Amino acid sequence: MKVINLSDVTKSTVKMEGAKNVLKQIPIEKADGTPNMSMRVFTVEPLGHTPYHKHEYEQLNYIVEGEGVLINEKGEEKKLAQGDFALVLPNEMHQYKNVSDNRPFIFLCGVPKEFE
Amino acid sequence: MKVINLSDVTKSTVKMEGAKNVLKQIPIEKADGTPNMSMRVFTVEPLGHTPYHKHEYEQLNYIVEGEGVLINEKGEEKKLAQGDFALVLPNEMHQYKNVSDNRPFIFLCGVPKEFE
Repeated sequence: MKVINLSDVTKSTVKMEGAKNVLKQIPIEKADGTPNMSMRVFTVEPLGHTPYHKHEYEQLNYIVEGEGVLINEKGEEKKLAQGDFALVLPNEMHQYKNVSDNRPFIFLCGVPKEFE
Repeated sequence: MKVINLSDVTKSTVKMEGAKNVLKQIPIEKADGTPNMSMRVFTVEPLGHTPYHKHEYEQLNYIVEGEGVLINEKGEEKKLAQGDFALVLPNEMHQYKNVSDNRPFIFLCGVPKEFE
């Protein structure tokens, strides 16, 4: 059993091409012995965004704070705000953007443990 | 891709033996095509609790609101509040309790999709 507060989890800058003003934390990772899924938290600073990209694994999201959009494989924007969940399936093109110029957009992102 | 707000997800009462004042929602479940994990949300009403129990699968928790405790396999209480994550491993005895008499205790609970 592990219990940790988000404020105690190291933040690192996402350096992936196409990412702007994005920080990552990993409160639950494979080193903790999680059998299937890891849990990451992304903080997208004002006007920042993740790359518009896809990968072979799914993502389970929960929006903790702020307002943003999730762009789908058709380029359509779906609004995201606190209390929203999203499921991005394997190989779906997607991008998260913070639409605020003064508040962070923070969301959880569960992925298979192999990736973190 | 699925996007849904928690307020739009059906709530059901948990009828498992040992549960008191607990409601469950399942914003991401196997019917959505999730490849590995489902995401549930439990609302433990004031002075409510889950059973003190164990099972063969893990749980990944994030505390959305309120204050509670997570009781481990030794009977020790770990405080939980908004922003905390917990990982309960397979076959670990555990129980969640709301310690407030006037506020709900709400947390996410990721589990393998086979269970929801």
